[in-house]
Amino acid sequence: MFESITIVGVGLISGSFSLALKDRGLVKHVIGVSRTETSAKKALDLGLIDEALPLEEAVKKSDFIYVAIPVDVTIDVTTKIMDLVQDNQIVADAGSTKYALCKALKNHPKRNRFVATHPMWGTEYSGPESAVHNAFAGRACVICEKELSDPRAVEKIESIYKELGMHIAYMDSESHDMHAAYVSHISHITSFALANTVLEKEKEEDAIFELAGGGFESTVRLAKSNPLMWAPIFMQNRENVLDVLNEHISQLRKFKSCLEKENYEYLMELMQNANKIRKIIE
Amino acid sequence: MFESITIVGVGLISGSFSLALKDRGLVKHVIGVSRTETSAKKALDLGLIDEALPLEEAVKKSDFIYVAIPVDVTIDVTTKIMDLVQDNQIVADAGSTKYALCKALKNHPKRNRFVATHPMWGTEYSGPESAVHNAFAGRACVICEKELSDPRAVEKIESIYKELGMHIAYMDSESHDMHAAYVSHISHITSFALANTVLEKEKEEDAIFELAGGGFESTVRLAKSNPLMWAPIFMQNRENVLDVLNEHISQLRKFKSCLEKENYEYLMELMQNANKIRKIIE
Repeated sequence: MFESITIVGVGLISGSFSLALKDRGLVKHVIGVSRTETSAKKALDLGLIDEALPLEEAVKKSDFIYVAIPVDVTIDVTTKIMDLVQDNQIVADAGSTKYALCKALKNHPKRNRFVATHPMWGTEYSGPESAVHNAFAGRACVICEKELSDPRAVEKIESIYKELGMHIAYMDSESHDMHAAYVSHISHITSFALANTVLEKEKEEDAIFELAGGGFESTVRLAKSNPLMWAPIFMQNRENVLDVLNEHISQLRKFKSCLEKENYEYLMELMQNANKIRKIIE
Repeated sequence: MFESITIVGVGLISGSFSLALKDRGLVKHVIGVSRTETSAKKALDLGLIDEALPLEEAVKKSDFIYVAIPVDVTIDVTTKIMDLVQDNQIVADAGSTKYALCKALKNHPKRNRFVATHPMWGTEYSGPESAVHNAFAGRACVICEKELSDPRAVEKIESIYKELGMHIAYMDSESHDMHAAYVSHISHITSFALANTVLEKEKEEDAIFELAGGGFESTVRLAKSNPLMWAPIFMQNRENVLDVLNEHISQLRKFKSCLEKENYEYLMELMQNANKIRKIIE
């Protein structure tokens, strides 16, 4: 489908994206742009990319440029790319926040070459080594402000994500950031905080290691995530994240109050309400 | 190894325990004791048990009685069993709290027939249908106050758990309950509270359903757990749970404060500290 694409960033998302396209024969040549030579070399060794080039050269040689880097640098880098592209090229990003980026690019003369996407897949790992085959399948990919993108560009990007097994959801960038705070960002905050809680209370790390079961592992798994990726997400989406974090603290206080007052009925009620999540994520 | 055993309760733990013993040829005949006929019938249909009997009859016919019921009824039921058993029989429980039970049985004339165990395995499901083959493997099984049990009884119970692939950890019942609060009970509280948070904030349930990814699923998975099992655990271990819950709320407040004050450095520091969990649960 593409002769040559560039992935900007050679980590979990871009690397897995490249593998998915290569596995399906959707691209012939993948160029990688990386801030460090070490990562570029790893990405080459792992077969995530066929060539490593500086940004400007890479963009010139590509039909499609896919940006998957921490959101605090996405706006600058994407703007730089947009300044370079021609009318036959497509740019898309994979960032976990969309409002600030969409706002920054809104009046760019080449805005229609850009498609704002968020494939809602990830793991707690990062870097070229974390890239995996068969990523993305079964998850949603959000596309924001599609009306500002060239319809054929949108169609092309959609068809790629669909080939990877994703379903497409459309929304404006504000709604995206609000929903992302609820279904993704808060889970990361609670997991980081839970890890800190246990590390603070349980001075005998051997006991955690020895006793931890599947429940503990699944709730703290996300605490292994890369701070350099997640701190910028929380900061860029801070109003929504604060809103849901305040709610979460108040929900935890309800449990606390039940235990303090030994209010068994209310405790049961809180848990029965939580059980409603069964019908949503079964 | 056993001619005939009784499982009291025919749910996730007892059912999976029975399957594990049957799969390995460690028992010939499994009797089930259930409060409801529906569950007893399901357990029979699913092959978890070979026979359903009332408690007293079941105990008489068994070499080994395994109690796996909600912890608010465990003390009464186990005491009743202990009053019935002879010196050639063994009783063990699988409860998630150990202090109250061990205290209640401490001076029982047949205390040495009892082995207090907590196999630290489980899923978010309950009832006979939730029982699975190959459960327990790779997890810890805590044995409390082993010095109060007959050494040959302990040896026999240990050898069973080891055959299931568990490693044994010994501790007093107070330490067990404290560690269990850290590595298990708090994970359930945070998961229940997170489900309530998202259900409260995200009125568009379709959005959760459509957008939720692996991270969300893993952090709220435990919120599907059975309140009838977990409310008694939280209540029986309320002092330890409150202690760790208070710490958790204070850890979440640190994240809140970072976001409110846009203190990026401290946010990074909190997350980097949480990353230490990597070396414990990798």
